[in-house]
Amino acid sequence: MKNIAIISITINIILIFILTYFCLKPVKPKTKSNDIKIVNTKGALKTIFERKSVREYTDAKVSKDMLNILLKAGMASPTAGNRQPWAFITITDKNILKKLAEGLPYAQMLNKASAAIVVCGIPSESFSGKESEYWIQDCSAASENILLAVEALGLGAVWTGVYPVKERIDWVSKILHIAPGTIPLNVIPIGYPSGQQKIKDKYKIEKIHWEKW
Amino acid sequence: MKNIAIISITINIILIFILTYFCLKPVKPKTKSNDIKIVNTKGALKTIFERKSVREYTDAKVSKDMLNILLKAGMASPTAGNRQPWAFITITDKNILKKLAEGLPYAQMLNKASAAIVVCGIPSESFSGKESEYWIQDCSAASENILLAVEALGLGAVWTGVYPVKERIDWVSKILHIAPGTIPLNVIPIGYPSGQQKIKDKYKIEKIHWEKW
Repeated sequence: MKNIAIISITINIILIFILTYFCLKPVKPKTKSNDIKIVNTKGALKTIFERKSVREYTDAKVSKDMLNILLKAGMASPTAGNRQPWAFITITDKNILKKLAEGLPYAQMLNKASAAIVVCGIPSESFSGKESEYWIQDCSAASENILLAVEALGLGAVWTGVYPVKERIDWVSKILHIAPGTIPLNVIPIGYPSGQQKIKDKYKIEKIHWEKW
Repeated sequence: MKNIAIISITINIILIFILTYFCLKPVKPKTKSNDIKIVNTKGALKTIFERKSVREYTDAKVSKDMLNILLKAGMASPTAGNRQPWAFITITDKNILKKLAEGLPYAQMLNKASAAIVVCGIPSESFSGKESEYWIQDCSAASENILLAVEALGLGAVWTGVYPVKERIDWVSKILHIAPGTIPLNVIPIGYPSGQQKIKDKYKIEKIHWEKW
């Protein structure tokens, strides 16, 4: 009986060890600390379906690290002929954000945003002639990547259109001293969402055609 | 001693129970079976950074369920003024895929693809005048959502441009009987990737401007 007790206690200790070590230990991320943010986000499809336009923000600052991830996400999108005809202006200066808002009636949320990214196109870096217009598609894909990365990081943002409205292009170009030949496509105000933002369900079966129109 | 043995054995049994029940039990997804695919994908940022143009596919068929998820992802993107000026043609008929390829020199992968989605814009459903051009940006964002959903689902695809090249627009419109006033932006061949596809690192620090140009 003594032997059974000793064996049993030993098994107890081993089991407690296993339980503590493998099950109760917090799961360590497999990446280095500066990569965690990139790995540790919610799933891609969930992010795509939960992304929404966020127009109200708290006063919390968006870190430069986070902004850099957003820029990296933007540059990870595809471009026609891999021309990458884009440039990104990232603004965190409150005075510049407010100045931009003055000429952009549909971007008043810049007054409350902690940052903004202006996605610009450089048609001359795309194909020549009519096909240089691919810069619009390329920069739009980059913008969508930025918006999804925003959602993945728990931030909020909204795409406010600049191109093709001439007055808006002129205003943004003037305030940001944008080089001639470079066109601001949009201004994306960014911040931490204040309160519940609603997701729009825009799925419409009548928008889908199978095999042909 | 007998008591100790009995207590010890009892503790053993309890511990084994805990170990089996809480730690070794596979984690049950919290969603219904038809939602699993939407939840169970890799992280959003990882997907953004791992998305690549996939031009070679196996013979495996892409299910209609998967194609529907891609279409839902497309329609989850933002549009100017929430106009949703888009339509999606989804093709799985090999004959139509091959016919499309005949007039699209840069989309020869259609000959091997299991499916394709043609993202179309309907300018008249966007704003009026110059601002109707927002359909290009809206449909490009939808296309990027589709490409990211493709990556998330373990599929492969590539954005092949149609608009603004007149001959390609005419060819796709003719083959798919697209309604007048609707413009095919691109053709996205889709399939299961064959072999290792390379990820391009397109991050360039010189493309970033802080505060102003």
